[in-house]
Amino acid sequence: MTGFVSFVSAGPGDPELLTLKAVARLGAADVVLYDDLASGAVLDHVRKGANLVSVGKRAGKPSAKQEHVSRLLVDYAATGASVVRLKSGDAGIFGRLEEELDALNAAGIAYEIIPGVTAACAAAAVSAIPLTRRHTARRVQFVTGADVTGELPDDLNWAALADPHALTALYMGKRTFPALAARLIAQGMSPDTPALLAESVGHVDQRLVRTTIAGLVAQLAQENVTATAVILYGALAGTD
Amino acid sequence: MTGFVSFVSAGPGDPELLTLKAVARLGAADVVLYDDLASGAVLDHVRKGANLVSVGKRAGKPSAKQEHVSRLLVDYAATGASVVRLKSGDAGIFGRLEEELDALNAAGIAYEIIPGVTAACAAAAVSAIPLTRRHTARRVQFVTGADVTGELPDDLNWAALADPHALTALYMGKRTFPALAARLIAQGMSPDTPALLAESVGHVDQRLVRTTIAGLVAQLAQENVTATAVILYGALAGTD
Repeated sequence: MTGFVSFVSAGPGDPELLTLKAVARLGAADVVLYDDLASGAVLDHVRKGANLVSVGKRAGKPSAKQEHVSRLLVDYAATGASVVRLKSGDAGIFGRLEEELDALNAAGIAYEIIPGVTAACAAAAVSAIPLTRRHTARRVQFVTGADVTGELPDDLNWAALADPHALTALYMGKRTFPALAARLIAQGMSPDTPALLAESVGHVDQRLVRTTIAGLVAQLAQENVTATAVILYGALAGTD
Repeated sequence: MTGFVSFVSAGPGDPELLTLKAVARLGAADVVLYDDLASGAVLDHVRKGANLVSVGKRAGKPSAKQEHVSRLLVDYAATGASVVRLKSGDAGIFGRLEEELDALNAAGIAYEIIPGVTAACAAAAVSAIPLTRRHTARRVQFVTGADVTGELPDDLNWAALADPHALTALYMGKRTFPALAARLIAQGMSPDTPALLAESVGHVDQRLVRTTIAGLVAQLAQENVTATAVILYGALAGTD
C-alpha cells in the first residue's frame, strides 16, 4: 500500500485565499509538509491529530535541503499516508515543484497538484492594478530575482524583461533589484518606469509602495530586505 | 448611500477552485454580474434571492458590450446594492478589468478585487507541468492571442515570445495559434518546440494534448476551435 501526495497551493498568505479544494485536502491529510511561507492561519485547516512537519525553506535563501524535502515526501507516502505538500502561492510558480515531482515519479508514488493564487495576482489585486490591459499591457511575465545561491540569475532574457509594454512581476527579487535595474536601464528601459513594491500582501504588516525603478533602487538601499515581497514594474495602469 | 463592488475571481471553472473569500462574497451579494465563462456550478454559491445577471461575454469574441457592462456595474452599485462582478480565472489577467475600474473610479464607487486561480496555473497543474523550473524555465509569460476583434494582436513582442527558455501561456489563442506559430518560427523558434493544448480544464469535457508547435498547428487545422483553451509552449518540463 502506497500513499498519495497532494501538492497544495496555499496562496499568498491570507487564509481566505485558500481554495475550497486546498481546505479539503488540508482537512483530510495524515501528514502536512509546509514551508515557512505557507504557514500561520493557513494551517488552522489541518485536522487535529495530523502530523505537521515544517521543512523550513524560505524563498530567496540558499537551500541545501531540497533533497531532504523530496526524501521526506517519498518516505511519508511510502508508509501509506495521505500527504499534503503545502507550497506558498501557486505550487507551479517558483516553488521548486519539478524536483519533488521527479522524486515521486522515480519512486512510483501518485500525486495531484492543486493550483492556487500566485503572489503577483494577489499583489496586483490589493493594489487595484490589472496585470494585463487591452492595447497597453498584452503580456505579463513572472521572473525570479534569485537563483539557488540567492543572486540574480545571469542568464535571464534582459530584452524581454526591459520591454516597457509588458508588465513584469519579480519574485524573490528585493535584494537583487538594484542589479536587475542596472541591466534594464542598460537595455534602454527608462529609470522613470513605474514600479510597485508589494510586501507581506494580506498580512497585518502589508506595505505597498508606488514608485519608479530608480526610486525603488534608492529606497531599497536604505532598508533591510528581509520581508517577502513582489515587485511589479513596467506597464502599470494609469501610467502610460 | 452607495453600494460596493467586489470583483471576484471565479478560477478556471472547477467550483472547488474558488477561494474561501470568493465563496463568502458570492453568498453575501445582492447582485451578481457574470460572464458565460464564469457560471455553472460556481453560481451555486450565490444566495437565494440574489439578482443574477448574465452579461454574456465570451473570451476571444468581439465584444461591443464592455460599455454596457460598466454601465450596469455603476447603476447597480448606485442603488446601494452589494454587487459582485464575477470574472473567470484571475480577474486581473485578460479580463478587461481596467475598463470596469475606470468606470467605477469615475462614478466614485468603492470596490475591492479578490484574486483567483488563473487558467494557466490550472492547466499546468492538471498536466503536472511546473510553470517555472530552476535553470531551465526562469521566466513564465502570459499573452493574449486575440485582440478585441478576435485577431492576433500585431504589436506583440515576438522575440520575447519566441524565447525557448521561457514558458509561454497563450490565452484565447486557439484560433490564432497558426498565425502566432508562423511569427515564432520566423523568429527562429523550432517547430519542434513542445506545446500543450489544455481545453476545458476542470470540466467534464477536459482535453489535454501534448504535442509540438508544428503538431498543434496541424491539429487545429482539422477541428473546430470553439472550446475554451489555454496553450502552453516553450520550456515545458522534461523536454529540454
